[in-house]
Amino acid sequence: MKYCSECGSEVEYLIPEGDNLKRYVCTRCDNIHYQNPRIIAGCIPILGDKVLLCRRAIEPRYGLWTLPAGFMENNETTEQAATRETWEEARAKVKELTLYGLYSVPHISQVYLLYRGNLVNADFSPGIESLETRLFSEDEIPWDKLAFPVIHQSLTHFFSEYKQGNFTLHTGDILRNKS
Amino acid sequence: MKYCSECGSEVEYLIPEGDNLKRYVCTRCDNIHYQNPRIIAGCIPILGDKVLLCRRAIEPRYGLWTLPAGFMENNETTEQAATRETWEEARAKVKELTLYGLYSVPHISQVYLLYRGNLVNADFSPGIESLETRLFSEDEIPWDKLAFPVIHQSLTHFFSEYKQGNFTLHTGDILRNKS
Repeated sequence: MKYCSECGSEVEYLIPEGDNLKRYVCTRCDNIHYQNPRIIAGCIPILGDKVLLCRRAIEPRYGLWTLPAGFMENNETTEQAATRETWEEARAKVKELTLYGLYSVPHISQVYLLYRGNLVNADFSPGIESLETRLFSEDEIPWDKLAFPVIHQSLTHFFSEYKQGNFTLHTGDILRNKS
Repeated sequence: MKYCSECGSEVEYLIPEGDNLKRYVCTRCDNIHYQNPRIIAGCIPILGDKVLLCRRAIEPRYGLWTLPAGFMENNETTEQAATRETWEEARAKVKELTLYGLYSVPHISQVYLLYRGNLVNADFSPGIESLETRLFSEDEIPWDKLAFPVIHQSLTHFFSEYKQGNFTLHTGDILRNKS
């Protein structure tokens, strides 16, 4: 950030009075421009013993498989965000969403909220950011072609708990050297 | 937002190509300035059968009682944010944090993450945004002087489940007319 988004003047990066962190502060109108983590909302779309994955049509990890997920938008709920991303990336409708994972990714200031959701039907197709969409049972999952460690971890948890018939919320941090 | 924070030129509010929502887009450098929900992280600090509340020294709801909570900062985890807010507002140290509530507040684009946490000891005092800090058992809670409906709801859940000895995650949406 170099300029104030309210008045167009230059900003300085300093600790405002009464604060303890550096902020971008306008040199003319004194506006303080706070920057905060963003939420990635996603879904494990489930049909019977299978889950729906998308093959990425975008970087990073072009061509690898992932769960539908993306940035939460203003004026929506976390469940609406996960439902919308499932629609946008896999043209699939999900219902009965339950929170399944909450992961902080502090080095990129993101928080990942992952839901389990039941597919309304078997209709799905690649959205603009996907090359391919497909249902996978556990033994069909392309484990060595998953886009991100958190996807691998979440699918491992899911199939393990699916067999036990008992799901629990997973929380944790994804740190730079471990991701 | 009126000006581009990267080059200082005016922005337009329009739907970029390939998108489906209006964004602030720079008329000169084409930067797209996305705006996303912010996370409020908070804690129910627990000591035995009591919880620690703060009386607000700031608007809104000046003088009313609340749980320590505030905006999550970049480069921290959700648990670190809840721990930090408990320190800043109540000068209290908490450990063993467990996610207890996730609430979306779409009309103000906020997501509220509430933890249960055990107080490390009985040391606490008002931080700069608090007038007073105090431990309350269930029958001492100032139910008619709580700052926000979500505080009332969370404390009701907490004491009910504390007596049952079984805590569950609470999720939901706080809508304009219901808050």
